[in-house]
Parts: sequence; C-alpha cells; structure tokens
Amino acid sequence: MIRAGIIGGTGYTGAELVRLLSFHPEAELTYITSRQYAGQIFSDIYPALRTIADIEIEEFDLKKAQNRCDVVFTALPHKIPMEIIPGLIENKIKVVDLSADFRFRSIKSYEDYYCEHKAAEYLEKSVYGLCEVNSHLIRNASLVGNPGCYPTCSLLGIIPFIKHKKVNCDDIIIDAKSGVSGAGRGLSEGTHFCSVDEGFKAYKVMAHRHRPEIEEKIEEIADQKAGVCFTPHLIPAVRGMLATIYMRTSTDTSESELRNILCDYYKNSRFVRVLGEGEFPNIKNVSGTNFCDIGIKYDNGSKRLIIVSVIDNLVKGASGQAIQNMNLMFGLDEAKGLMVPPQAV
Amino acid sequence: MIRAGIIGGTGYTGAELVRLLSFHPEAELTYITSRQYAGQIFSDIYPALRTIADIEIEEFDLKKAQNRCDVVFTALPHKIPMEIIPGLIENKIKVVDLSADFRFRSIKSYEDYYCEHKAAEYLEKSVYGLCEVNSHLIRNASLVGNPGCYPTCSLLGIIPFIKHKKVNCDDIIIDAKSGVSGAGRGLSEGTHFCSVDEGFKAYKVMAHRHRPEIEEKIEEIADQKAGVCFTPHLIPAVRGMLATIYMRTSTDTSESELRNILCDYYKNSRFVRVLGEGEFPNIKNVSGTNFCDIGIKYDNGSKRLIIVSVIDNLVKGASGQAIQNMNLMFGLDEAKGLMVPPQAV
Amino acid sequence: MIRAGIIGGTGYTGAELVRLLSFHPEAELTYITSRQYAGQIFSDIYPALRTIADIEIEEFDLKKAQNRCDVVFTALPHKIPMEIIPGLIENKIKVVDLSADFRFRSIKSYEDYYCEHKAAEYLEKSVYGLCEVNSHLIRNASLVGNPGCYPTCSLLGIIPFIKHKKVNCDDIIIDAKSGVSGAGRGLSEGTHFCSVDEGFKAYKVMAHRHRPEIEEKIEEIADQKAGVCFTPHLIPAVRGMLATIYMRTSTDTSESELRNILCDYYKNSRFVRVLGEGEFPNIKNVSGTNFCDIGIKYDNGSKRLIIVSVIDNLVKGASGQAIQNMNLMFGLDEAKGLMVPPQAV
Amino acid sequence: MIRAGIIGGTGYTGAELVRLLSFHPEAELTYITSRQYAGQIFSDIYPALRTIADIEIEEFDLKKAQNRCDVVFTALPHKIPMEIIPGLIENKIKVVDLSADFRFRSIKSYEDYYCEHKAAEYLEKSVYGLCEVNSHLIRNASLVGNPGCYPTCSLLGIIPFIKHKKVNCDDIIIDAKSGVSGAGRGLSEGTHFCSVDEGFKAYKVMAHRHRPEIEEKIEEIADQKAGVCFTPHLIPAVRGMLATIYMRTSTDTSESELRNILCDYYKNSRFVRVLGEGEFPNIKNVSGTNFCDIGIKYDNGSKRLIIVSVIDNLVKGASGQAIQNMNLMFGLDEAKGLMVPPQAV
Repeated sequence: MIRAGIIGGTGYTGAELVRLLSFHPEAELTYITSRQYAGQIFSDIYPALRTIADIEIEEFDLKKAQNRCDVVFTALPHKIPMEIIPGLIENKIKVVDLSADFRFRSIKSYEDYYCEHKAAEYLEKSVYGLCEVNSHLIRNASLVGNPGCYPTCSLLGIIPFIKHKKVNCDDIIIDAKSGVSGAGRGLSEGTHFCSVDEGFKAYKVMAHRHRPEIEEKIEEIADQKAGVCFTPHLIPAVRGMLATIYMRTSTDTSESELRNILCDYYKNSRFVRVLGEGEFPNIKNVSGTNFCDIGIKYDNGSKRLIIVSVIDNLVKGASGQAIQNMNLMFGLDEAKGLMVPPQAV
Repeated sequence: MIRAGIIGGTGYTGAELVRLLSFHPEAELTYITSRQYAGQIFSDIYPALRTIADIEIEEFDLKKAQNRCDVVFTALPHKIPMEIIPGLIENKIKVVDLSADFRFRSIKSYEDYYCEHKAAEYLEKSVYGLCEVNSHLIRNASLVGNPGCYPTCSLLGIIPFIKHKKVNCDDIIIDAKSGVSGAGRGLSEGTHFCSVDEGFKAYKVMAHRHRPEIEEKIEEIADQKAGVCFTPHLIPAVRGMLATIYMRTSTDTSESELRNILCDYYKNSRFVRVLGEGEFPNIKNVSGTNFCDIGIKYDNGSKRLIIVSVIDNLVKGASGQAIQNMNLMFGLDEAKGLMVPPQAV
Repeated sequence: MIRAGIIGGTGYTGAELVRLLSFHPEAELTYITSRQYAGQIFSDIYPALRTIADIEIEEFDLKKAQNRCDVVFTALPHKIPMEIIPGLIENKIKVVDLSADFRFRSIKSYEDYYCEHKAAEYLEKSVYGLCEVNSHLIRNASLVGNPGCYPTCSLLGIIPFIKHKKVNCDDIIIDAKSGVSGAGRGLSEGTHFCSVDEGFKAYKVMAHRHRPEIEEKIEEIADQKAGVCFTPHLIPAVRGMLATIYMRTSTDTSESELRNILCDYYKNSRFVRVLGEGEFPNIKNVSGTNFCDIGIKYDNGSKRLIIVSVIDNLVKGASGQAIQNMNLMFGLDEAKGLMVPPQAV
Repeated sequence: MIRAGIIGGTGYTGAELVRLLSFHPEAELTYITSRQYAGQIFSDIYPALRTIADIEIEEFDLKKAQNRCDVVFTALPHKIPMEIIPGLIENKIKVVDLSADFRFRSIKSYEDYYCEHKAAEYLEKSVYGLCEVNSHLIRNASLVGNPGCYPTCSLLGIIPFIKHKKVNCDDIIIDAKSGVSGAGRGLSEGTHFCSVDEGFKAYKVMAHRHRPEIEEKIEEIADQKAGVCFTPHLIPAVRGMLATIYMRTSTDTSESELRNILCDYYKNSRFVRVLGEGEFPNIKNVSGTNFCDIGIKYDNGSKRLIIVSVIDNLVKGASGQAIQNMNLMFGLDEAKGLMVPPQAV
C-alpha cells in the first residue's frame, strides 16, 4: 500500500483527495494536516464522509510526514508549498503539489503572475502533471506540479492539434466557464449562495493567472510564441468546467480529419472521451469523475475550429489528476482508484 | 458472477441500476430492455456512462431473460410488473421489483390506491425489501418488493421506536421533501426547469400513495392501527429526500434514551448513520450513496419526538436498496458494490 | 412625499427597502446609513440598482435623521435598534423596526430568547406590524415592530382559524422552509454556494427564536396557552418561504367551511390570496412580491387541518410588509408602491 | 389608453407581455388568444398572476382583434405570424411580431434558415425593432420585427463600434450563454430539471439561426460582409443571457477611448448601462428588467476588444423590448411601463 499524506487537507481539493484515497485499492491515507482544524475529526468538517474518513487532522510536521508517507499531496495556497516541499523531497517523499508553485518552467512567468519564488531550483526538476501528455516524464518524477483546472481543460483540447501543427498558436481564444467550487471553500461575497444562484458573469477578463500557464505549455510544444485570449466565467453550479476554444487551422482540412487527430491522440487514454459529429459535452456528464469529454466543430469557410472541452474542476482539474499522477509515479495503472461510477442523472 | 438484467432500464432508476451494476465486483449486467429505446446504445441516452455502459438495449423476451439472468430488476411503472414477474419467478429467476406491485401485504390497500391486482397470489410470497428491517426474510426470498422512496426514508426513522413501543402509532406526521428525480424522467410541466428552479411547493397533500404503504408497514410491526398524516414537497434539487417526522412518546423519556434506541437498532448497519446531539442531516451528505442519515430532537414538555431522516431517493430510495436486496438474496455482504465515494463537496 | 430613511441599509432587507422605495409614488428615500459602507454609493454594492439608487451611504446621525426623515426603517441586528429608536421617537420620527426588538409584548419572552431589553418601556407602545391582522392599530402607531418572516408566513395561515375558535392552540406543528436570503448577507460556511446548492436540511430544530414570537401572538388572540412545535429548513433557493402547518379542529367541520373562514377573513386584503380546492401554493408564485398565498386540506377522519402558506421572506416577510406598515401609518392605501409585477416565469 | 392584444399569449414571452402590460400606465390588455388554452383563465396557467391577470383566453379572430386592439403582439412560433399579420396590418392594427418572420431584410436569408416566406412583401415595410438603434424608424412603423434575444444582447455591444468603424467585421466571435427560459415552455428532455441543473453545455455550435440575423444587421450598418462565429450555451438558470464578444480593432486605440464610444452612443438611453473600468456585468443584475449592462476590456498587444453584454432574455430579449417598441410606435416615452424594480438580491 502506498502511504499518502495530505498537507492542507480541509479545502475542497483536500476533501476530494480524502474522498478518492479512501476508496483507492492500493493507497491509504496516513496523514492529514491543517493549521486551522488540527485536532478535529475530518468527517466533522465534511459530514458526507462520516464513517468513511473519521480521521484526526494534525499539525504539519516534517518528521511525521517522513515516518508515515511515501507520497504527499500539498493542497495549499501558492507560496506555502515552496517552503515545505524542498524538505519533503530531500527526505525521499514524492510530492504532488496542487498549487501553482511548481507548474511553471519559467521563473519569470511565475514571478510576474504570482510572487517571488524561493525554491526556483526545483522548477526544472518538477514535471508538469498533465497526465495524458507527460506520462513518460511523470513516471520518473519525484515532484509533480499538478496543472491548474483551466489549463487542464483547455490544454487537453488544444495540444493534439498543436502537436500536429494544424493550428495557429498566436490567435487562440479560450472562453472558459467554471463551477463555484473552483473558488474554493473560503468565504467571500462572491461565493454567497444569493450572489451566485441565478447569476452568470465573466471575471478577471484577460487577467487570470491560468493564462500564462496555458501559454507556456503551448509554447513548449509548439516551440513558438503563443497568444491566448482567456476569459473565465462563473457557472451557478458546484462542479464542472467547460472551455470553448476558438482556433484557426493553418491549412485546409476537414472536421473528420481533425476529429481523427483527437481520437488518435487519446486512443489509449482511459479518461479522455472524444465525442462524435454533432455531439457536444455537458459538465454534468463528467461530474464527480476524472473524465474529460471533448467535442469539436469545424467551419470550412472561416477555417475556424471550435473545441468544447469539459472536466470536473475538482477531479480531473485537481485531485483526480493528482491521484492519477501518484499512480503513474508509483508504477500503477493510471486509472487505479479513479473509476468512480458517474451519476447518469 | 451474478448475471443481472434490468427490465425497463431507461428511466432514472434503471440508469442508477446500470451505474451501480457496472462497478459491482460480483455482478454483471447481461440484459437491459426498454420498449421505447430497443436497438439503441444505453450510453447514447445517458452520456455520462460513455465507455462504461455502451450496451445495447433490447426488447423484453422471457426466453432471453431465462438464458441470461440469475436476477432481474423490474424498473417499470406499476401494473406492468405484475404481468411479467410470475413468468420470471416460474423460470427460477430471482426478482427485485422497483414498482409498488409487490410491496403490499394487503390486496385491498393495493387495489384501493393503485389498480386491480392480477398476480395477487404472489403478494404473500414477496418480501418487503427494507433491508435494515427485513434482511432475514430477504435472504430467502425469490421476489422482493423494493420499498418506495418516501417509505424507506420515513420507516428507517420510525421503526426502531415502534419496535420499542416508545411512540404512539395513531398520530404520526411525516412532512417529506423530495428532489425532482423522484418524479422520473417523463416530461411534464411540473418538471420543466423553469417551473422547479427557485420554487418549492407541497403536492398531493394527504393524497400520496406512499402513505398507505407506510401505514401498512407500521401496523405490521406495531400490531395496531396506524394514523399517518403525510405531506410531500418538491425540493429544487436533482437528488435527495428528507423526512421530518413528528411523533409523541407514550411514556416519559429523554433524548439520549431515544438516541440509544436508534444507535442500538442500527449498530450493525453499514448504511444508517445516526447523528449526535444537535446534529441534523443534509440531503447533500448522502447524495449518490446508499446512506441514510438520521438526527433526532426530543421536547420533554410536549413529549414530542422529531426525527429527521435523509436518503438519496434514487439510491437508498430505489436502485441502491434494490442492489442491497440482490446482495442479500445471493448471500453476499449487503454493502457489496454500494460503497461509492460520497462527494464531500 | 413621505421622506424615508433606512438605518442599516446595506443588508438584504435594507436593499429590498431601497428597491421598493425607489419606485414608491408617495415616498422618497432621503437618508441611508451603514457603519461599514459609509461614503460609498449604494448601487456599487448592489449593482442591480445602478442608475436607480446611485445614492451615498452615510453614517447614522440623529440630527440628520431628524432633518430629513418623516419615517425611519431600522434594518439592523437586534439589540442595536433599542438604543437608537427611543431618540427617533422622541424626535417625532415614525419608526418601523425590522428587528425583533419591538415585536414582543412580553419582556420576559424577549429577554429569554434574545438579550436584556434596554428600552422595555417602548414595548407596550409599539404595535406588532402584521398588517392584515392589526391594521387598525398600525394606523395610529408611531413605532411598529415588523414581524419576523416565519411568524408572518405562519400567522397569516393560523390566525383566522384561531379567531373562529375552530382549532386547538396547544398542538400546532409548523414545518417551515426558507430560502437562503433569510440568513442574510453575512458570510458563513452555511451560506456558501457549495454548501447550499443541491442540499436541504433542518436547522435549529425546536430552538428557533421565531417560535416564541408565534406563540405569543397566538396566545394574545386565543387568550389561552399555545403550544407550537417549530422546525425550520433551508431551501436551495434565494427567496421564498413555505410553512406547512398541522392543526386539529376542535369540532367537526368540513374543508369548504374552513376555506370560507379564510376567504372571509381576507376578503378585503390585497395581498393574501386564498387558493381553491386541491390547489397548493409555490414560493415561486410570490417571489419578489408582497403576496401571501394560502392553500388548505382537511382530513375529516383525523380532524387534521393542513395549511400551506407561502411568502417572499424579503418582501412580505420583511421589507414589503415594512412599507405596507408605513403606508398604513401615513394614511395611504396599504398597497401603494407594493404592486410590483410578479414574474410569471 | 392603448388597447393591446396578444396572439399566442401562453408561452413564456406571452406571459411576460401579460405581466408587463398589466402594470403599464397607458396600455391595457384587451385580448389574449391561444389555440390550446382558449376558454381558460390566464392566471390558472400562470398562478403568479392570480388577481392580476384573471382574464379569459380566447381563440384568435381577426374581427375581434380589429374591434378591440390598437396594437397586437404576435408571440407565436415562426411561420404562423406571416399568415396572420397581413390581415392585421390591412385593418390598421399596429403589430409587434416576436417571431423571426419579419426580422430579416433578405428573403433569401430568412428562407435559408427558416422556411418559405409567404408574406415577403412585408419584409421591406417592417422595421427591425432594436430600439436603441432604430428608434427613428420604429416611431413611424406599423409593423416591427422584434429582435431575437441573442441578436439583441450581441448587437447592443457591437453596433457602436461598427458605427465608429473601429473594429473588423469579418472576424467576430460571439460566445453566448442563455438561461433555460430561452428554450420556451415546451417540454423536451433538454429542459427537464434533472437534465439542466448542475449542467452546462454548448448547443447548435455554428448552427443557430440567430447567427445570420446578427450578420445581416452588422452588414447593413457596416456596408460590408460580416463574419460571425456564434456558439450558444445553456446556463442552469431561468432567466438571463450573457454574450462574450471578441473583436479586433482596426487601428490602435485604448480602452478608455472605446468606452467613450459606448458611453456616447448610449448617453440618452434609459436601458443600456455601460460599466466602468474593471467592471463586468452579471445576468442577475438585469433579471426581470429591460436593462442591458455592458462591460469591456481591451488588450493593446493583440488589439483584441472583449465586450461582455447581458440582458434578461425574456424582457430586453423579447417582451420588454416589444413593449418598448409599442411605446415608440405610439409616441410614448420608451420606458413607460418598463421601469420595474430590479431585485437587488
């Protein structure tokens, strides 16, 4: 059994890790920490998990982590992980970091959009944990930067076409929509039920920090400058994320050729489901699961390719992918513990 | 492996059976029928189950059922099962019927509230599949009448106190609330999103057919006439059911004594979770699961006992309990295939 | 024009007062205060009211109130109004208080459930502002204690039968359900969208402070002890409140006789709509309005009367009724400024 | 008083017309028809309007319309209005048609996307009723083609920039999102509460009939070919529509210059509210009202202009604008009867 710990386990992504690890056949949750809730029982905070995760929350202590964990998930706000993770790595604990701290290759990008980086030497050792794209690197990684939710949803739709050099990289529009859980468990006027329900809005237009993350990953693959226009919106739903992506193909092509590229790229993937002609995905169909459903439409006249991609922001967009990363890092089937029954209704 | 079939598999309870059977470690779905959708692929109707249940829907045929099924779930509107089930039973197929056709002991009650019964001789052979109460009978049954959702939610809260003769049976008020999936997949003005969302209403006040079902089961245990006042309401949510039950105790007692009765009754149950003092359940915490969470409050002055019980109407209130019944009928652990990870968020 | 001020104008009931006063043909909003938001523009906090209420929020100052207001609405947490209101009254400003501070006749009840009362001498001068019941008193009042939302919704259903001595007062069950706006604008884990959406729960079972308010008002009319069992629940909707009330009639009667009592009692009311046989109200149908819709069901056998009553908790349950009180206090038609077009969809 | 009739009054746009006309100070509802509901009382179908619109629904009869109406709103599926409207016009009844039948200038466009046009000679007489753009034409019109909801929401954001020749017309992306009421009152699997709630999806990608309507109107103003890529999505909310529009400016400019263009264009408009820097609109803030709120963001580097525009699809996107058109046609203030109090919560 893999002994897994969660540092910062009481946020939504922490809770989702607990949920999934509790049913993982080859991992067990041995350590869970939170500054705010230390001493309390996890299922008192998340009563859905009564009898399933009646586990005591503790303070973080490197020694304890060392004694009890083969792998640690850090589910903390950015800036804190960079202070903790070097110590974990040095103690041979594998780490999947769910913050932005180890997602970027470029220190400059990170520092432009987040803050000063105090463990920059780990940036080149860390692997960007987009499993369907980087599985070969993840298998050998000891530190994985788990991708952001918007980047996961967007890149899974975009990358196959970038790899095939079918599309222009300098004119990509991502109109993205996320459920409210993406904003986290923290309280704010913007997450009050009465602010969200029956509402829909754009936010951080051209100012969201997931944009440079997406651009960097496209540029690495395309080996040229990318231009992404990114507009996030808030859906009045708990879970789910949908990205509508507008690109232009660089040559004449057809919808079926484009769909073939996608199907081919994901032919061995358990989690990416490519939809047929005229079919478009619904966030409801991936809720609670690690699936990413993708549908496309091509307009010959304008050479415009429209990709619609959906994930559950807390699963494939965070904790599910984190466990998928753990599976790969420990040589397991990447789907282990992640095939939870999707709710059809 | 138990070979399981579903007759009438395209309604919501059918879909929920498919979801759960697809992940059941000791059962496999070998046959699924629907008049309306025969010839189609199940996951085209419920795209959440793409790659998981890409199974062809067929017409019902007794021969096929006989060849392919050890157990059949009938997820059909009442009146149809009574025509099909005798044939199945005669062919040694075990049956869990999700309609009302085989729930009643009293033909008169059934016929008063539903319609003429054409297989009344099976009523006394059938077992009422409220698993936590009747497991000993279910283990030997070949035909189980799977309880209604409101009766399941209500009776699990009421029965322990009836068994202990702690409460009056002639003055029970059940104020119940159900999510919209309880109304089924059929289209009606009342299930249109714009009718339901931001709404809340009572319906079928004192006129719902689950009331006589509840009364019969109480009377069987109490061996005296029961009087239940039952008011269902519609919650603007997909899944979940909450019953607020008002009873009076027949003698002086205390909340802790009452809670002990409940804890004791369910001490070996995997699915009933009795909450502590001052805690009350939320439908959200059992969504997608086979759990029933129960909280109580006792008012000494008025001798009023208030029980709040919640289930997921599609799982413990229908398909989950149906599979729990199957597990019992085939000698398996009753929880087999039913411990799906609850969503904490 | 009546010059109206709002003390504590930035909570939900304050915002609702602003909305309604902005369109009132015989009142104008001349003063709005908030400690937290002083100096800001009201519509920056509630952008729905851009161009309609671009009014500056100020600090509370008795002098200013005196110079600018004929009437003041205090929309503050209980305890604060009792400190402010005496000064207003002495300065000949009429007051409608939306807190609990001046709702009770009995100091003891208030102090048992809230806190020490520092302006108890005003309790007997204040009038309980349940407009359909106390209009004759309200017309001459200078201080009105605006009823709580649950009491308004419940008492409008109960009082006509109490007045006709048709029902027992000592065995009343009120199973009430409220939308989330009833919890106010303050942030808490319990109002986070992800906690509420797809959820439904009971809270403060037998422990809500609106219960003694309801009991006192019934006792005043019945001139005997009342016994109310009160269970509030939270609906995943922004607005609306529904009370399902269970009473027993003291003599044999019929549903049509009971309905006649209701129709007769409200025959001159603009805001109470009594529904016909077999019809039950939906909170959706009164959303945004000052209406109270009531439906009833009578069960001859058990002599049980079930009353279902709905209001919009922010309008008839708070700010709408407050303005109705103002209208009565100033000799206007009680419906003035309150006939806003209900949304049929 | 203007005597107004509604042909096809029982759909959502019909109900919204009834709601607004019931409170219009200079119009009265004198005639309402529906084939399906003739003989019934309107408020029995829409109980929110009890006591407000207890009016009998009738069969359509030209004679009656002639005797009772100065203006008629046709709220019918396309194809039917073209058969009825010529008769009305010949009888000197002014008409606002809420279908697509008289929106297009080009017969070809209409016939390509809808069906054969049998009253094509009226196309050039009809005026496109986008009030803020065409008020001068509407004032003299006897037949107005009321714009589609998506075109209204999009064009109000786009047209000021087209008029100033600031943007390219051939590369416009409109990523639009609509509440469920846009799908109408008809029953379908796609409007079932359980299909919509907690869901979000794209539909009719590049295949929605509002696209050619938008293109035609842009082309008329720009006097050149327009290229619009249009993707509609479904929001799990009853009302509201948001369009995120991506255009490129043809010359260097700045966000403040662009905002000035917008403010200037709408400086006399009562219903369009242009938001300040960094502010973006929420559908919640225009719900139930005739407002259109618009926010913009400009990215100098890519010369990309992002416009976010919101309306209530049933009000400004249908019935509210229809009444605004009536107001203009009869020489009234365009806002008459339309300044309903917006719900701030």
